[in-house]
Order: sequence, then structure tokens, then C-alpha cells
Amino acid sequence: MSAKHSRIDYTSVAGLPLGLGLVLLGQALEGGSMRSILQLTAGLIVLGGTLGAVLLSFSMTDIKRACSAMKTVFLWDGEPPAETVATVMRYATHARTSGVLSLENELPDVTDPFLRKALALVVDGANPIALREMLETENEKREEYDEIPAKVYEAAGGYSPTIGILGAVLGLIQVMQHLNDPSKLGEGIAVAFVATIYGVGTANLFFLPTANKLKMKARHESRRRELMLEAVLAIQEGLNPKMIREKLDGLAAQPEPIESRRAA
Amino acid sequence: MSAKHSRIDYTSVAGLPLGLGLVLLGQALEGGSMRSILQLTAGLIVLGGTLGAVLLSFSMTDIKRACSAMKTVFLWDGEPPAETVATVMRYATHARTSGVLSLENELPDVTDPFLRKALALVVDGANPIALREMLETENEKREEYDEIPAKVYEAAGGYSPTIGILGAVLGLIQVMQHLNDPSKLGEGIAVAFVATIYGVGTANLFFLPTANKLKMKARHESRRRELMLEAVLAIQEGLNPKMIREKLDGLAAQPEPIESRRAA
Amino acid sequence: MSAKHSRIDYTSVAGLPLGLGLVLLGQALEGGSMRSILQLTAGLIVLGGTLGAVLLSFSMTDIKRACSAMKTVFLWDGEPPAETVATVMRYATHARTSGVLSLENELPDVTDPFLRKALALVVDGANPIALREMLETENEKREEYDEIPAKVYEAAGGYSPTIGILGAVLGLIQVMQHLNDPSKLGEGIAVAFVATIYGVGTANLFFLPTANKLKMKARHESRRRELMLEAVLAIQEGLNPKMIREKLDGLAAQPEPIESRRAA
Amino acid sequence: MSAKHSRIDYTSVAGLPLGLGLVLLGQALEGGSMRSILQLTAGLIVLGGTLGAVLLSFSMTDIKRACSAMKTVFLWDGEPPAETVATVMRYATHARTSGVLSLENELPDVTDPFLRKALALVVDGANPIALREMLETENEKREEYDEIPAKVYEAAGGYSPTIGILGAVLGLIQVMQHLNDPSKLGEGIAVAFVATIYGVGTANLFFLPTANKLKMKARHESRRRELMLEAVLAIQEGLNPKMIREKLDGLAAQPEPIESRRAA
Amino acid sequence: MSAKHSRIDYTSVAGLPLGLGLVLLGQALEGGSMRSILQLTAGLIVLGGTLGAVLLSFSMTDIKRACSAMKTVFLWDGEPPAETVATVMRYATHARTSGVLSLENELPDVTDPFLRKALALVVDGANPIALREMLETENEKREEYDEIPAKVYEAAGGYSPTIGILGAVLGLIQVMQHLNDPSKLGEGIAVAFVATIYGVGTANLFFLPTANKLKMKARHESRRRELMLEAVLAIQEGLNPKMIREKLDGLAAQPEPIESRRAA
Repeated sequence: MSAKHSRIDYTSVAGLPLGLGLVLLGQALEGGSMRSILQLTAGLIVLGGTLGAVLLSFSMTDIKRACSAMKTVFLWDGEPPAETVATVMRYATHARTSGVLSLENELPDVTDPFLRKALALVVDGANPIALREMLETENEKREEYDEIPAKVYEAAGGYSPTIGILGAVLGLIQVMQHLNDPSKLGEGIAVAFVATIYGVGTANLFFLPTANKLKMKARHESRRRELMLEAVLAIQEGLNPKMIREKLDGLAAQPEPIESRRAA
Repeated sequence: MSAKHSRIDYTSVAGLPLGLGLVLLGQALEGGSMRSILQLTAGLIVLGGTLGAVLLSFSMTDIKRACSAMKTVFLWDGEPPAETVATVMRYATHARTSGVLSLENELPDVTDPFLRKALALVVDGANPIALREMLETENEKREEYDEIPAKVYEAAGGYSPTIGILGAVLGLIQVMQHLNDPSKLGEGIAVAFVATIYGVGTANLFFLPTANKLKMKARHESRRRELMLEAVLAIQEGLNPKMIREKLDGLAAQPEPIESRRAA
Repeated sequence: MSAKHSRIDYTSVAGLPLGLGLVLLGQALEGGSMRSILQLTAGLIVLGGTLGAVLLSFSMTDIKRACSAMKTVFLWDGEPPAETVATVMRYATHARTSGVLSLENELPDVTDPFLRKALALVVDGANPIALREMLETENEKREEYDEIPAKVYEAAGGYSPTIGILGAVLGLIQVMQHLNDPSKLGEGIAVAFVATIYGVGTANLFFLPTANKLKMKARHESRRRELMLEAVLAIQEGLNPKMIREKLDGLAAQPEPIESRRAA
Repeated sequence: MSAKHSRIDYTSVAGLPLGLGLVLLGQALEGGSMRSILQLTAGLIVLGGTLGAVLLSFSMTDIKRACSAMKTVFLWDGEPPAETVATVMRYATHARTSGVLSLENELPDVTDPFLRKALALVVDGANPIALREMLETENEKREEYDEIPAKVYEAAGGYSPTIGILGAVLGLIQVMQHLNDPSKLGEGIAVAFVATIYGVGTANLFFLPTANKLKMKARHESRRRELMLEAVLAIQEGLNPKMIREKLDGLAAQPEPIESRRAA
Repeated sequence: MSAKHSRIDYTSVAGLPLGLGLVLLGQALEGGSMRSILQLTAGLIVLGGTLGAVLLSFSMTDIKRACSAMKTVFLWDGEPPAETVATVMRYATHARTSGVLSLENELPDVTDPFLRKALALVVDGANPIALREMLETENEKREEYDEIPAKVYEAAGGYSPTIGILGAVLGLIQVMQHLNDPSKLGEGIAVAFVATIYGVGTANLFFLPTANKLKMKARHESRRRELMLEAVLAIQEGLNPKMIREKLDGLAAQPEPIESRRAA
């Protein structure tokens, strides 16, 4: 969670320009000029329409959160599960040797707020059943909350291709009204098709993959909290550290949403 | 729930005209006249057909509720979760100091009917397990009930694009029957395409986003009731207020469906 | 359940002709003749193909039930929840004053078979936990069973548009084989398009809305049985009538599938 | 399960030729020759491509099971629920009069393997809770296993229309390369369209309806096993036969997947 | 799990070339040259765009795992369930005769890590309820983890057809800009269509079937672990081996994802 974990998400950084670039390269190789697919009006229709649909669909809070989530797509500050396991194992060993109450002194150093809260409740002597229920519910709500930015992009990726078709049909109407003027025909249709490209392209090269990456990261954070939750409950139960590690290793069998190399 | 919470939902108010406006602006920039996309017959086919399909799909009660729900889309009277937490914490502290039974005097001032009912049952000494089950079931039923208007708009957004295609094909049939008269050809096809625009446009700029906003608001109300439910059960259990707030803060990690600024 | 509850479902009665009528009116205003969209062969392909697909998909029993369910779409004999609450509250008060066993004399007058069975089991002294489980399971099975006609129409609404496209392509093949005879071209394509209209039209103006209405009604009946179930278990438990009504009001927060006005 | 229950599934037997026949009749009435839609290459592309996709998707075991399941589509050997109820009621009465252990002598005559296993475990004195869990798990696994052939057809019905489009586009490429030779144009396009017909037709008139029928039958068998399971547990519990029948009648409210008439 | 189980997955090995080959054979029979569907630019757009979208959607870890999973598609090292049952039955008999603790000596020979861990925990005297919960949770997490490569291919199969359409529209724009030069018209459209073929073809002949096969194998492994889990818990419970086999046979009613013949 802390800044020291901030790592560049190389697949995101590569994926967006790569997809766009190769498509445009293909277009250039076919002999198409860049200018023929830069169309202010098509952009206005597709992006404007999609923006309107997204605004009507969500609250300002959700949309702002979706915008800030872009940072998470490219720069990931999630902790690798192995590190989380190492951290909780340290507290487990500590609790085993000096007792659960001795964890109180460690609390200020716990950086993850979910873990700190859970350990604090253990120190306070919370009832184990109520504690599990409370932490599980909080984890679920948190995951639902964390998935909302993904939903915003998913909705945008659902609206934009159909609004692209809307733009295409609007363009075709103009074309049809100038059928007697064949010189305008081809170019007119070309203009109309650019809207389709914007709709399909933004959805498949940007909105939907972004939604997917955000969902994977929200899922990862949820599994990491689950891991802390199980560890804390096992600490409270007084399980021996070996058994706790056994349990956590089973739970930590999860891919990380990005590679482990650190950003400079 | 009370009128004092009524706030304009700015993203709804902005989203609908913005989407529509930018699409029409794009259309104007392309040199299209507004008249070319105003088509009585296309409107009759698409909106009439969609209306018929929606009427056959739902009951009059559901459709009337969907109509009144339009108000909720633009003017939201939901309470921010922070305020709900503040309210229930007040009762929690009160119960802690003067006993659960003392809440009886507060009951008439409780504005939220779900909270009032829950507190009344606690004062009546209801069995905790039965109480949780009863309130959870009521919350679920309530959410199912609150989502019905969203379902009406969702169904409309499912029917309208295909009925738009129906209108387009009907139009093309006319076109085909006048193939020998090329002067009518272009305009005829244009007419046919307007039905597609109406179908795709109403679905993506109005019906589906409206359904989405209503669903988000129903979900928000459900989470707020869940919050009250957990608070009331914790009050009944005699939990200390600090622990209750801890629990509620975990649950309240939820975005509001609209911004917090008040309507004048 | 009894005949006295039979009410015309006005939205169904209005929705089907309205949708169809407005589409045809639009078609007429466009200058299209009715004859141009009446096509025996297109009808044969689309409706025949859909019929074959539905027969292969379901059993004769299911298909017959789907046919009789058409009556339910237009004439609804479901009881309004308020009446069901009134009925069970009468038994609750009776049981409170004269004891649960005294309900035996009332049994022959209970018109709803689910309620009669439940009350009979209470009178027989069934174990509360087994009784709840048994009634809940029966309610679930019943809902699954009641939803089958809706599934038949849903399947038909899934097959018909694609079979419409099948018909269109079959038609286009004929067209292509007479390309040298331009006089046949336009009319031929028109013929081909009628199959698309039949496919899309039957699905969106009839099959899918019918499936939706039947599903809403099956859901309504299930919630009504749930209400009776909770009431009967509360009666067995000896809950006081006030608390029972409180519980039922929470559960009854459900829209009726049709308006409350009675058929003459 | 035994051969004596084998009955022809008339809707399957009628549905497949009816759908295909009416589509072809419509085609003939339109003046289309059968020859124009018999296309070896289109068939090779669509059926070959679908076969390849299905092979890559599933194991040989699954595909063989899907092939043998074709027999089940047309010839159904499932037992009507009423007969199953009659059978288990016989054992219930027997157990009531002569004790559960006396069922041992009946075991060799029990034709259904699931019922025989369940009764044998009751005779062996299995723990009721473990028995329910074991039988329920087995029923679930069995249903999952029985649904696999349906999934194979469903996958085929998902691949074939898009591979039909693949074939169509391949055809259109040929057409485009002979644009200068108008005499080949029409026929070429016709050839291309046949692939679409094969893709859409096999999916909607055969693959998807077959998958649906198999799923309905797997569901039916699962509900029949559930019925036996509940009956056997009630027998073990020592419930009186009247109460058992009451319970089973609630569960048996299920349509049969085919009509009850026996095959000659 | 061990190498000795490695078997060639014949349906995978056959399915991919068969699908592709028959489609190309059909194409050749239609008189189409292979060259007409080999298009560098179309390939660049479709595969490049899909690659970019997949990179943006997933982490490098997930994508690498998806690449290595290709081996699993063609060479399967899963154990047939019958063998797993034989293995666990051996331990069950052993535990019955010499006691659960005697399994400790067997542990080093257990090749499956899940089974070894489970047996080790039994030998350590883990609490049965905690053990079940722990193993079930681990199995679930493991299945979720094993399904990720399938999800990568599924996402690719979702992006590629629409990016194919993107490529087609890009091509059509070029065509439209040279409308005055009819000689380029046909060939240009042909070029544009190749992108559609690449999009639809890669999705339906490769990406989606691969995702399906991987999902079936992940499901199979999960069911095999479930089988080991139930066996180990039954061993701990001290159930007699006959009852354990009865239980396992019910659970093992599952198709293998590939045929049983061994690879040479």
C-alpha cells in the first residue's frame, strides 16, 4: 500500500501504445493516410455520446474515481502476496513468543490499514466469530467498492461501439442525400466509417482492457486482505506459526497482477 | 429520506443533454440538417413498438413506478452514508448511557422508516436471531422491489435497437419497390436509417444509462439499510460505541450515487 | 387462485396490439402497403423454423403449458398480496385466541392449496425446522416449474431473429441468381427482407415480452407463497399478531404484476 | 432407467424434420431450387471448422458422450416422477411395517442404482447427516456430468454461425476478385451466402435446440434423484408414509421432459 | 501430476489443424488462392491489436502462464480419477489396519502435493472442521488460479473479432477513397475482408476452443482434488474403506478431459 511498493505496470504501459500503434502501422502499410482517420465530427459524436451516457449512468464520485484509477492501471502500488505473508508471519511468531497482547506495541508500525484494524481488534479481545464476520463483510464491501471504476470503463466500452454505429448511420444519411453527386460519395462513406472505428477501437483497445485490468487488481487486493484476515484469525486462535504458514501458502497461490520488478 | 436531503443529480442533469447535444452537434458539423433526422414515421415505429413491448412485458404498476423513478434520476433524496452513521451513532451512545429501552422516546423523531421499525423491535425486546433474519429479508425484498424501475428501462433499452432495425428494414422494403425511380432512392434509404438512429440512440443515450443509474441508487439504499441493520443489532447486543463505529466505517466504504452538494 | 380473482391484464391486452399497430401505422404512413409485408413463404420459413426449433428444445408437456400460459398473460387470477396478508392475519388472530389446533375447522375453507397444506401440517404438529425446509423447497420447485412456459417463449424469441436472417439469406440467394433481370431485383430483395421483419418482430413484439410477463407473474406467485410460509411459521411459533403483521408488511413490499381493478 | 421405460420423444422426432422441412418448403415456394443451397465447399468450411473447434474444446470422452446422447434426444428412457414416487412409497410403507432393516431383502430388486445405493446405506445404518451430504454431493456431480453433452452441442451452436460468416467472407473475397466478370458475380455471392445458411441453420435448427433438450433431461433426472434422496432420508428418519407422500408431492411438481405415451 | 502421466491430447492435436485445414480446403475448392488470404497488414492490425488489448488487460505473469498453458492443451499430465481413487484407497486401507499415524512413513512417496499436505495435516492431528475448511478454501483458490490462462484466451477471443471489424472498416475507407478507380475496387474490398477472416477465425478456431479446453482441465483438476479431500477426511474420521470407496465412486463420476491412452 505504501509508496515503496509503487511499480510500473509494464504490460499496461506497453499494451495501450502497442495495440494502437500496430493498428495504425497496418493502416499506414495499406497506404492509408493518418489524416483519413482523424475526424473531429466523428470523435465528437462517439466520445461525446459515450461521455453523456457514462455521466447519466454513474455519479460524479464514481466517475472521478474511475479517472484516478487510470493511475493504478499504469503504476501499481499493491504488495506482492509473498511480502504480505512475510509480514503477517512476523506478527504470528511475535504473538507466539510474547503473547497476543504484545502486538499492541507493533500496531503503529503496521502500514496496511486493514491489517492494523484486524490486529487492533484482536488485541482488544474481540469475539472470534464476530471478528471473522466483521472482517469478511468489510472485505466484500471493499471489493465491491474497488470494482466500481472497472464498471465505469466497462459501461463506456459497452456504449461506445453502438454510439459508433449511431455516428456511422448519421454519416450515411448525409451520403444518401448527395447520391446524385458521385464525387462526394466515397469520401462521405469514409467519413461515416471513421465513427465505427472510433467506437470499436476505443472499446476494444482501451475501455474494456482497462476495465479488465482494474478488475484483476481489485480481485488481487481482495485476496490479499483475505490472506491477512485468515492470518489474524489464526493468530488469535493461537495456531502454531508452521500451521499458519501452511494455510497461507495454500491461499497465496495467486498470480500477481503485475511483474515483481520495481520502478526506479 | 426526508425532503431536506433532496439534491440535484448533476451528472444526470448534464449527461442526457450532453450526450444528445454532442451527437447532434457532430451531425450539424457534418453538414446534416436537423430536419433530416426528424422523422415522424420512424419515431412512431421505434417508440411505439418499444412502448408496446414494454407494456406487454410489465404491469401497469411497474411502468408507473418506472415513470416516477425518472424524478429519482435527476433529483436524489438519499442520505449520505456519513449522515446515516452519525444518526445511528447518536442512538448507540444514547442506548449505552441510558439503556436500550430509553430509545422508545426517540422513536417518533426517527425519520427513516426502516431504522424506526428496527429500533422499535429492539425496544420491544425482539429475539436477536429472528430480528436479524427479518431485517435482512426485508432489505433483500426491498432492493428487489427498488430495482424494478431499472428493469423496465433495461428492457426498453433491449427492445428499442432491434425495433429500430425492424423500422429500417421496413423502410428498405419501400426503397426496393421504387428502385426504378433513382431520385427517391437516396432519400428513401435515409428515411430508413433514421429508425436505426432512434433505436440505437434511445437505448444508449437514455434507456440503458437510466437503468444503470437507478440500479446504482437502489444498491446504495440497500447498503445504507444494511448499515442501519448492523448498527441496530450491535446496539441490541450492547456493543460499545467505539466498536460499533469501527464496524460501520468498514461497511460505509461505499461511494455515494451523487455528489454531496445540496440543491438550492 | 379462485376464479373471483380473475382480472384482465390491461397492459398485456394493450401492449400487443399497440406495438404491432404503431409499427404498421408507421409503415402505412411511409407509403408502404400492407400487402408488401404479407409474405406466405417468409412466414413459413420463420414461424416454421422457430416451431421446429422449439419442439426439438422442449417436451410436449412444456409446450402445451406454454400455450395455456397465454391465458395467464391476458387474464390474471393471482391474488393481490394485501388480500393474502388479510387472509393469513385472520388465521393468525384465530390461532392466537383459540389455539393453533382450532385451525383444523378452518382448513376446508382455505382456497389456496399451498396455504391449506401448510396450515394442515401445523395442525398435525409438524416439526418447525422440517416444516420450514419442506415448504421452502416446495416453493422453489414450484417457481422453477412455473417459469418453464416463460423459458419456452424466451427460447422462441432467441431462435426467431436468427431464423429470420436465415430466411433473408435464402431470399437473397434467389435474388442473386436473377441479377440479369433487374426488374425482379428490387422486389426480390423486398421479399427477402420480410423474413427479417418476421423474425425480429415476433421476437421483440411478442415472444420476449410474453416471456418477461410470465416470469414476473411466476416471481409474484413465489413471493406470495413465501409470505404465506412466513406467516404460517410465525403462527406455529405463537408470535403475536402485531409482530406477524410487521413481518408480513416488510415482505409484502412488492409490486403486483397487474393493476387491481377487477374484470367485469 | 430400465429399457421398459424407453419412449419415443415425439417432439424431438417431429421438431428436427419439421423445422428443416418448413424452411426448405419456403425456399421451394420462393422458386429456389434445392441445388442452389447444396454446396460442398460451404459445407466443408462450416461443418469442418465447427468440428475442429469442438475437438479442440473438448476431450474425446466428452465428444463420444455427446454423440451417444443423440439417442437420448429421440428415445427417452427416464422414469415418470409419478412412478418414482410410487416405487419409493412402496419401500416407505414396507419400512414402516417391518422396520428399516427389512429393506435389505428388497435391495436386489431396486432397478435405479442411485436409489439402491441410498437404501443400502440406510440398511447399513449410515449417519443421517453424512448420508444427506453424500447423496446431495453425488447428485450435484452427476448433474454436472450429465450436462456435459449439452455443453458440447451448445459450444458447437456458438461456433457454427461465426464460422458460417467466415465462409461467407471467404466466398466474397473470390467474388471481389472477379468483379470484372459480372456473369460470375451473382452466382458467386450466392455461393458465399450458403455458408451463412449452414452456420445459422445448424446452430438454430439443430445444435442449440439439442443442447436445450439434453439440459432439460439432465435437470429432470437430477430432480428425480432429489426426490429419491428426500424419500430415503424420510424413511430413515421414520417419518410416517402420509407425511412422506405430502413431501414428495411438493417435490414432484415437475414437468416430464416428454409425453407419457409409451413407444410400441 | 508426475511425468509418467503425460499423455498427448489427441482431440487438441487434431482439432486445431483439422478446423483450419478444412476451412482452407473449402477455400481452395472454391478456387481461391492461398495468397489471397495471406495479408501482412491485416495480420498486423488484428493480431497486433489483440495483443495490445490482452497486454493492457492482464499482467505479464498471467500472460506468461497463458503461454505455458499451451503445453497443457496438447500434452496433458493429469491423473485419471480411477488412479487417484486407487491411490487414496491404498492409504485408506493402510490407515485402517495400522492406524492413521502410520501414514507418516508413506508421506515422502505421495507424489501429489495437495494429497501429501492433506495427509500430513491428518498425521499432525489437525482439527477435522478446520482441516475441511482449509482444504476446501485451498481447492477453490487453486481452481480460480488455474482458470486464469483460460480467461486470457477467452479475452483474446472476445477482442479479436471486433478488432477484425476495425481492420475491415479501415480497409473500406481506403477503398472508398479510390472509388473513381474501379480496377482497385474489388481487390481493395478483398484486402479489407481478410481482416474479418483473421478476427473471426482466430477467435473461433483457436482462442475460444483453447479457453474451453483449459477450463475443462482446470475443472477436472479441481474435482480430483475434491476427491482427495473427501478421501482424506474420511480416513481421518476412521470410516471403513468400503464406505470410503462408495463415497468416492459417487464423486468420481466425471469424464476425463482426454482419452486414457498413454503417449509413447
